[in-house]
Amino acid sequence: MFTVTVRDHLMIAHSFRGEVFGPAQRLHGATYLVDATFQRPELDGDNLVVDMGLAATEVHRIVAALSYQNLDDDPDFVGINTTTEFLAKIIADRLAARIHDEALGPDADGLTGLTVRLHESHIAWADYHRTL
Amino acid sequence: MFTVTVRDHLMIAHSFRGEVFGPAQRLHGATYLVDATFQRPELDGDNLVVDMGLAATEVHRIVAALSYQNLDDDPDFVGINTTTEFLAKIIADRLAARIHDEALGPDADGLTGLTVRLHESHIAWADYHRTL
Amino acid sequence: MFTVTVRDHLMIAHSFRGEVFGPAQRLHGATYLVDATFQRPELDGDNLVVDMGLAATEVHRIVAALSYQNLDDDPDFVGINTTTEFLAKIIADRLAARIHDEALGPDADGLTGLTVRLHESHIAWADYHRTL
Amino acid sequence: MFTVTVRDHLMIAHSFRGEVFGPAQRLHGATYLVDATFQRPELDGDNLVVDMGLAATEVHRIVAALSYQNLDDDPDFVGINTTTEFLAKIIADRLAARIHDEALGPDADGLTGLTVRLHESHIAWADYHRTL
Amino acid sequence: MFTVTVRDHLMIAHSFRGEVFGPAQRLHGATYLVDATFQRPELDGDNLVVDMGLAATEVHRIVAALSYQNLDDDPDFVGINTTTEFLAKIIADRLAARIHDEALGPDADGLTGLTVRLHESHIAWADYHRTL
Amino acid sequence: MFTVTVRDHLMIAHSFRGEVFGPAQRLHGATYLVDATFQRPELDGDNLVVDMGLAATEVHRIVAALSYQNLDDDPDFVGINTTTEFLAKIIADRLAARIHDEALGPDADGLTGLTVRLHESHIAWADYHRTL
Repeated sequence: MFTVTVRDHLMIAHSFRGEVFGPAQRLHGATYLVDATFQRPELDGDNLVVDMGLAATEVHRIVAALSYQNLDDDPDFVGINTTTEFLAKIIADRLAARIHDEALGPDADGLTGLTVRLHESHIAWADYHRTL
Repeated sequence: MFTVTVRDHLMIAHSFRGEVFGPAQRLHGATYLVDATFQRPELDGDNLVVDMGLAATEVHRIVAALSYQNLDDDPDFVGINTTTEFLAKIIADRLAARIHDEALGPDADGLTGLTVRLHESHIAWADYHRTL
Repeated sequence: MFTVTVRDHLMIAHSFRGEVFGPAQRLHGATYLVDATFQRPELDGDNLVVDMGLAATEVHRIVAALSYQNLDDDPDFVGINTTTEFLAKIIADRLAARIHDEALGPDADGLTGLTVRLHESHIAWADYHRTL
Repeated sequence: MFTVTVRDHLMIAHSFRGEVFGPAQRLHGATYLVDATFQRPELDGDNLVVDMGLAATEVHRIVAALSYQNLDDDPDFVGINTTTEFLAKIIADRLAARIHDEALGPDADGLTGLTVRLHESHIAWADYHRTL
Repeated sequence: MFTVTVRDHLMIAHSFRGEVFGPAQRLHGATYLVDATFQRPELDGDNLVVDMGLAATEVHRIVAALSYQNLDDDPDFVGINTTTEFLAKIIADRLAARIHDEALGPDADGLTGLTVRLHESHIAWADYHRTL
Repeated sequence: MFTVTVRDHLMIAHSFRGEVFGPAQRLHGATYLVDATFQRPELDGDNLVVDMGLAATEVHRIVAALSYQNLDDDPDFVGINTTTEFLAKIIADRLAARIHDEALGPDADGLTGLTVRLHESHIAWADYHRTL
C-alpha cells in the first residue's frame, strides 16, 4: 500500500458551545497545519500515487475557502462545533468530492483512501480517515 | 475513523541487561516525547473524539508518575528492560485502565483504540497500539 | 554568552486594518507557538541561566492572559494591529516587567536580554529582542 | 501491535519522464529523510521489536548505496521514474530482503510488516507499507 | 530589534570539485528548506517588519529561478562549488537587490539586515547574514 | 557572516543538587539534541565554512564520550550540576580545543565563533556561544 501526503495550512476564528470546552467557548482562533494523505494500492503508469501538483492545488483551494474566516459565520457550520476533528472530516469530504469529480485527473480513481490530519498546535492534532 | 493526539514528555534514567544493548547496558537516560492517540469511529455530541483537556491531564498524570526517576529502582520494573517500545505499552495500558475507570468521562466508552508513541530522539521512536 | 528557551502556545482571534493585510483584514485567528529566550553572560551558582520552572510558569501566565480571546476586544489593543511581530514585543515586555518584579527570583537580575519568537505557522515566524 | 522507527537520509539527483512532472522533468535533486518502521505483534525476549542498532546499520547501508548518485544513471532504474513513492518501495523491498537474510538477527523473523516513509520536503512525503 | 521569517524550499542537482567533498563530488542533489529573515529596528505604521505576502512572493521568485535545475549548468555558477553556505549568500544577495529595487514596497527601506538559512537535511544547515 | 550547523544527540543520566531543581534532584536522565554551529566571516577556497564531514565526526566524538553515562559518576563533573546550559558550554569548549588542535583541518583557523545548542525536550533548550 502506498500513500502520498501534502501539507498546507489555514488560519480561522471560531468559538465552541458546551461546558466541556472551558475557555474555548469564547471567540478565539487557530492555525491548522493540514496534512492530506492519498492512499493507493498500486502506483499508476508514471509511478505516482497521485499528481502531487494537482493534489496540492485542490487541497489549497479547499483550505483557502475556509481561511481568514470566522467559522461561526459560515452558513455551512451554523450551530456546529467546528472542532479540529470535525474540520478534518470536512476537508476530507470536500477533497473526496473533488476526486470523484476527477479534479485530480482520471487516474485518481485508483485512490482507495484519504486521511486528513489537522495540527492545532505542537502538542495536539486530529485525524479523519475515510475510504474513497 | 477519527483520532485525536496529545503530546507530553518525560525524563528518566535506566539501564538495560543483554549484549544486544551495547553501551546502553550502562546507566544512562532519555527524554521521551509521548504522543497519545485516541481512536473513535464517530464523534460524540460535542463533535469530539475525547475531552482533550481531560485526555491531556490523564496522560500527564501517568507520565509524571514515571518522570524524574531511575526506572531500575521502580518496583514495577524489577528485572525488566524498560525499552522505548515496552514503555509505550506501559503508558498505553495505564491510560486504558483510566479510560475504563471513566477518568476521561462516560462518553469515552465510545473510544475503540489507543496508540502511544515514544520518541527517544529525533531519529528513533516506537509505537504501541491496542484496542479498548 | 548563555541562553535558555522555553516553549508555550496560545490561540487567539483578531483582524487587521490596512490594505496590506488582504484577506487577513477579516476576523480570523492563529495558534502562536511562543519561544521565550533568556540571556545571561555567566551562569548562576546553580549552573543555571534562570530557574526554568519559574520561567515556564511566568511565560504561561502571560500567554494564558491572552489565550482564547478575540484580541480586537482587548482594551490594551484598541485600534492596534496585533501582528505576530507586535505580539512578540508585547509578550517580551510583559515578561521583562515580571523579571524586574523578581517573579523569576532575585538571581534573575543577572539576565541581560530577552527574545520572544512567535511562530504563526510552519512557514512564518517573528522575533523581538530586547535588553533587560 | 508494536513498531519501531529509525530515521536516516539520502541526497540524490534524478529527472522524470512525463508531462505530469512539469519542471521536474529537468535534472534536479532531492534530500529524502527516510523513516523505516518495523512492525511486530509481540516484543522479543529483550523487550525489543528489533535490534535498533542493527536496524539503523542496515537502513544506512541501503541508503548509502543510493546516496550521492544521479539515479538516472543507476542500471536498476533505467527508464523508470524514481518518484518518492517508488523509492520508498525500493528501500522497503531491499530492507525486507536483508531481514529475510537474517541481517537483523534471527529474532527478526518475528517482524510482520515494514513501512518506509520518504520526506522530500517539509510539505510532501510518501509511504510504502508491505508485509514480511 | 524585530525580525520576520518566511520559509520556502527548492530541489536542485549539483556536484562539487575538491577532495574535501568525498562522494559529494559525484552528481547528486538536495532539497533545501529556505528560511529568509528580515530585520528591522522598529515596526512600520502597520505594525509590520515587512509585508509578509510580498516577502514570501519575492523569496519564492528567487527560489523558483533556481529550482528543478542542475546548478552545474547554470551560467552564474560556472566552476563554482554551490555549497549550502554559498547558496545561502546567493539567495540573500538576490533578495537584497530586490529590496533595494523596492520590490517589497517603499517601507522596506527600513529593513537593516537579512539572514538566509538553508537546511540541507534534518541534521545540517547553513546561514548567511548581511546588512542592507 | 556565515555559519554551518550539524546535529547529533546523546542520552545520559544525572541528578541535580539544590532546591531550585525540585524533582530533578532525583536521578533521572535526558536525550539531548546537540546543534553545533561554526561561524566564519568569509568562506574558504572550497566555498565552505568548515569541512562538514570532519565537523560532524568531531562533534560525534565529543558527544559519544559523554553518551550512555551517569554524569554523576564522571570525574570531570564531581559536585557540579550538569545542567543543559552547562553541558552546552562543556561541549563547545571541548570542540574549541579540537579546533585549536587542527582536528577540523588547518583552514578551520578561519573560524571565529562557535555556538552549541542542547535541546532537552520539544519545549526547552539552551545555547552557549563563544569566540574562537
